[in-house]
Amino acid sequence: MNFKLNEAIEVLERTPQTLEHFLVGLNKDWLLCNEGEGTWNIIEVMNHLIEGEKTNWIPRIEIILNEGESRPFPVFDRYSHLTDGNNRSIEDKMIEFKTCRAESLSKLKTLIKAEMDLELSGIHPAFGKVHIRELLSTWVVHDLTHLNQVTRIMAERYREDVGPWKEYLGILRRNKTGN
Amino acid sequence: MNFKLNEAIEVLERTPQTLEHFLVGLNKDWLLCNEGEGTWNIIEVMNHLIEGEKTNWIPRIEIILNEGESRPFPVFDRYSHLTDGNNRSIEDKMIEFKTCRAESLSKLKTLIKAEMDLELSGIHPAFGKVHIRELLSTWVVHDLTHLNQVTRIMAERYREDVGPWKEYLGILRRNKTGN
Repeated sequence: MNFKLNEAIEVLERTPQTLEHFLVGLNKDWLLCNEGEGTWNIIEVMNHLIEGEKTNWIPRIEIILNEGESRPFPVFDRYSHLTDGNNRSIEDKMIEFKTCRAESLSKLKTLIKAEMDLELSGIHPAFGKVHIRELLSTWVVHDLTHLNQVTRIMAERYREDVGPWKEYLGILRRNKTGN
Repeated sequence: MNFKLNEAIEVLERTPQTLEHFLVGLNKDWLLCNEGEGTWNIIEVMNHLIEGEKTNWIPRIEIILNEGESRPFPVFDRYSHLTDGNNRSIEDKMIEFKTCRAESLSKLKTLIKAEMDLELSGIHPAFGKVHIRELLSTWVVHDLTHLNQVTRIMAERYREDVGPWKEYLGILRRNKTGN
């Protein structure tokens, strides 16, 4: 096990600025491309990250702290962001994500006061007992998953353009599942 | 085909700042972890990106422009960065990469003056005739591949820590090949 709270926060606090420096100012063709039917574009990934701040990470920690294992977490709709319109700019999405994430981390620091809080547990609706330590680790890996997805979506756009180099580029050998 | 020179440059010029905002200041445990024996850590990825600026992208464009198909490109050693020591800080590596990339892009703009230059061709030592358009597309996807790799390396560090959430996290379902 490698989780340490301060190191997890290092990643969580960097995700918005990383996405901002990578994505703001890119042509719409980069922001609206996807990996094929049923896959997400970058705007949809941003919506999903914002949604997670509002309904997933901190709310679940609060349920564990307040109610423990007495009731399962409400089910988190992983696709609710797809019903949000794509009509706001990437700049607006980025400001919203940065603001939400800053609030989440500020709240996290008030909620988790001691190492032993990390061992508190709640009930996940699909797989039962989970600990705050696992939820926080998942929050970090979830950020990394979506940073990873953004690079994969963009690479896909040049799949044919790279010509014979395709065989050297690992990112194009992967399948398209797993956002 | 989706390649456009100005859109390719948008990505190429963002890669150093994206990596800087993501990686500088992270704990050594993030920077030195890898995906297992024979895989790269983040410092090694940075070395590889710097090496590419010095010996791969612009040098190959110059060979195409100056010599066309008259001789193959020199073989690019994709593993030479592993012989560079890991003893310089991530801040130093980042400054070097930013400087090299800025020089590369400045040179690119003087070398490629017209759309038709993109169709000029040279000889790749492994797969023969390639066009500048393909080389430039590959440069972009190569950046994306290594951004992708960095997120995968970091996610791997928490593989066990996420507990039962592993099955929801696509980044952990991938195999470890393809840097």
